[in-house]
Amino acid sequence: MRADIDHMRKLLTIVTEAAIESTLVRDLERLGAHGYTITEARGKGSRGVRNAGWDASSNIRIEVVCSADTAAAIAAHLQQHYYANYAMIIFMSDVEVLRPEKF
Amino acid sequence: MRADIDHMRKLLTIVTEAAIESTLVRDLERLGAHGYTITEARGKGSRGVRNAGWDASSNIRIEVVCSADTAAAIAAHLQQHYYANYAMIIFMSDVEVLRPEKF
Amino acid sequence: MRADIDHMRKLLTIVTEAAIESTLVRDLERLGAHGYTITEARGKGSRGVRNAGWDASSNIRIEVVCSADTAAAIAAHLQQHYYANYAMIIFMSDVEVLRPEKF
Repeated sequence: MRADIDHMRKLLTIVTEAAIESTLVRDLERLGAHGYTITEARGKGSRGVRNAGWDASSNIRIEVVCSADTAAAIAAHLQQHYYANYAMIIFMSDVEVLRPEKF
Repeated sequence: MRADIDHMRKLLTIVTEAAIESTLVRDLERLGAHGYTITEARGKGSRGVRNAGWDASSNIRIEVVCSADTAAAIAAHLQQHYYANYAMIIFMSDVEVLRPEKF
Repeated sequence: MRADIDHMRKLLTIVTEAAIESTLVRDLERLGAHGYTITEARGKGSRGVRNAGWDASSNIRIEVVCSADTAAAIAAHLQQHYYANYAMIIFMSDVEVLRPEKF
């Protein structure tokens, strides 16, 4: 488990409204994500001009492990298509992946 | 999606007993968190002199994306007020946030 | 909450099939993990020659905060014993832990 640069990927985390899950998943696959992990979540956030509160029971947390380029493409797409109308936060970090050839 | 230093935030993760969720959430908001994400969790941990095992069904995992100062304030508060009496682990990492102005 | 080097640990995240949870947990404890957090998850992934799709309802996401050595031992063990036959992704990152003496 060496910190080989080839093993570094981006972990992109999206927390948003459960209502758009199926649309989001299609976007992720089209933009190059080879997989994703979804967990049910709840919480509160405010963002942008909507200042929208999140419903306590209808959030999802999606994780995608992918290349930096794919992460940037996904983030840009989501920001352009969803940030205006949906409660959504996106953050990313660097992760070391075991056997990364598939991500 | 440039790695602008202004976009860097802390991701603070707290895993603890579900029984103190409402109290914790009030603390987070009072200490400057603009949002949080909660997922149901289970697990096992031991910490401090209690050597407490965690109940398999009553944990929560809370994520807060915030400034380094807010993360430090939250971590210090939780350590002071909960570590002695509740099973709790806190860890933080650096994340790049899309449109961070609200965090 | 200073960034003391002694406080740095690895956050190891495993997403895999729920069917092997109890076996995995025994492995984690035997290999030196002092605790773990499990959340229910669903998603999709492909990996290795199986090209296995994940069932939408039977995944788990396991987090372990541990030393770099323990993380490497766990990752190597899981890769050797599970990657051939189970859908599994493993990634790790650096985290700063509050009161790390137990991890």
